[in-house]
Amino acid sequence: MLSDIERRIEVASSSGQVPVVDLTRRAMDVTDLAAFQRAGVIVVRGAIGATERREVAQASRRLIQRAWQAPGERDFVSSVFSGQPEPVPYKVDYLLDKDPAFRILAASPSLLTVVAAIVGPSFIPTWETLVFKDKVAGPRLPWHRDCAAYDSPVAVGGSGRQVDAGIYLDPSRPGNGVRCLPGSCYWPADVAAAAIDVLNSGWDDYPGVPVLAQAGDVVLHNILTLHSAPEVKGEERRVVYYEYRPAEVEIALGPHNADYVAQKQRVLRQCIAERAASALGEGEPVFRYEPPVEVGLGEAASSEGGFRIAHSDYWTWAHAEPEPR
Amino acid sequence: MLSDIERRIEVASSSGQVPVVDLTRRAMDVTDLAAFQRAGVIVVRGAIGATERREVAQASRRLIQRAWQAPGERDFVSSVFSGQPEPVPYKVDYLLDKDPAFRILAASPSLLTVVAAIVGPSFIPTWETLVFKDKVAGPRLPWHRDCAAYDSPVAVGGSGRQVDAGIYLDPSRPGNGVRCLPGSCYWPADVAAAAIDVLNSGWDDYPGVPVLAQAGDVVLHNILTLHSAPEVKGEERRVVYYEYRPAEVEIALGPHNADYVAQKQRVLRQCIAERAASALGEGEPVFRYEPPVEVGLGEAASSEGGFRIAHSDYWTWAHAEPEPR
Repeated sequence: MLSDIERRIEVASSSGQVPVVDLTRRAMDVTDLAAFQRAGVIVVRGAIGATERREVAQASRRLIQRAWQAPGERDFVSSVFSGQPEPVPYKVDYLLDKDPAFRILAASPSLLTVVAAIVGPSFIPTWETLVFKDKVAGPRLPWHRDCAAYDSPVAVGGSGRQVDAGIYLDPSRPGNGVRCLPGSCYWPADVAAAAIDVLNSGWDDYPGVPVLAQAGDVVLHNILTLHSAPEVKGEERRVVYYEYRPAEVEIALGPHNADYVAQKQRVLRQCIAERAASALGEGEPVFRYEPPVEVGLGEAASSEGGFRIAHSDYWTWAHAEPEPR
Repeated sequence: MLSDIERRIEVASSSGQVPVVDLTRRAMDVTDLAAFQRAGVIVVRGAIGATERREVAQASRRLIQRAWQAPGERDFVSSVFSGQPEPVPYKVDYLLDKDPAFRILAASPSLLTVVAAIVGPSFIPTWETLVFKDKVAGPRLPWHRDCAAYDSPVAVGGSGRQVDAGIYLDPSRPGNGVRCLPGSCYWPADVAAAAIDVLNSGWDDYPGVPVLAQAGDVVLHNILTLHSAPEVKGEERRVVYYEYRPAEVEIALGPHNADYVAQKQRVLRQCIAERAASALGEGEPVFRYEPPVEVGLGEAASSEGGFRIAHSDYWTWAHAEPEPR
């Protein structure tokens, strides 16, 4: 007989698919929003055009080469895993100060319009990361939640206002892509922790629901939705992640402080201005970033500053370092 | 020189208007949603048709007559205020067991579609109340938040997922209607409390922003948005309020428990079925109430039950009685 945990996993897996909205056919509407809120994941098809994708792919290629050439450099993360003789790079943090392509992508109006609908107008960008399965090999990503945020994570974030947007530079397929458990964003913390144990110790028994994305798609996932990815060999897959949270939640509950909110609002405004002045920005609408005045701390951060806003400089939680992603 | 509190009040008042979406022209979209999230209030024009409004108005008329005839009856609330020789009724709680018109209205697809967009698919109805300025006179409603919910009210509810929907049976005008401070839903609890002191002690100096509604409009307000109404004489104005909250927030943070969520999901489903079988329900789409399976506690409450779900029977907070509304 199935335990309660196994039953929940079975129910979450039973849909077999995640919601999709194709922006080449119509804009995201409140029905798509509800589908995302229900499942904790949505594929936004055709969000990023071919030209832009090519530029970001080239910038990512340069970062991956740099990761191999200078192992141990700050923000470039490697891992030793099964059968590999040396550490294999799989992640680069703090993208915005590393190439203009990531700043211009961060200001994409189609991306930000979707994010604003999901998070609300008070959204700020938090993390930005390039995650990749290298051509050599990519490590398994065990089942996890991105962040066990807050005392009552589901009350604060069950609806997905803490959201991660993955911009796919390469397509994913069932054997090499992210899988998830739709609806698991509503599981209480103890249920999620127990489910993660079951899922990871019985890895082969729980394929979950595959998230199938094409190059140029944006996959949004509630940071509480359980997800994982298998180990891959000989197949490259690159995803640029930008995470977003509502400013008023960050100010009240952390993990970052209000200065961080102000810095991140400034950074996003600078990215939007840089895109507007770029070749890509010509002839497209500029995204109007207008957080509610009461969380709009722009004046406090109107002075110039860099693009690398280190989490640890603005961290309010008891543990000194940001949690691993 | 203005204090910080006075400056905030001035900024919040300066827009002079609240957002409006006219459903007779187009459906509510993500732009309207953002406008509501920013301001903490939105007028949804033409949400309720003339026939339905007439039936609800007649049912409300009967309740107001009953309030005069049987003062002190449970759920019928009166107040003695300036110049009135005896208590004047102004509020009737728990409407659903008092007239089918309120159950059928509670299942209005245009109302529930808007509510689902704002609260998310996990919404449950919480309070339902008829609030009226009697023809004789109606008392002043001081500046207030509806509910100082949760330890971090702005983090949990700043975006308006705890929302009150007022169905207007009579029009409001600047002199007799609700006024509000757009954006005050983002004020920290101490700022809101200080502002309420300033606003109520300097009543005539702070007209706020008038909420102008026509009969058949639905006015949605974030329960954290500061609002008030003046005393009125010789002019009737009746509003049916339904309040909504996300199930996962209620389950995790209260004030009601999970059994309440299950009861309220059952009640809403019964209202939807009653509307579908009514004359009004003919030829209109039935609202599809589909909360995420993980907060869909329907089985626990599938047994029959009444429509009057007393708050105090499901109350989890330390103080025994629901807070006054």
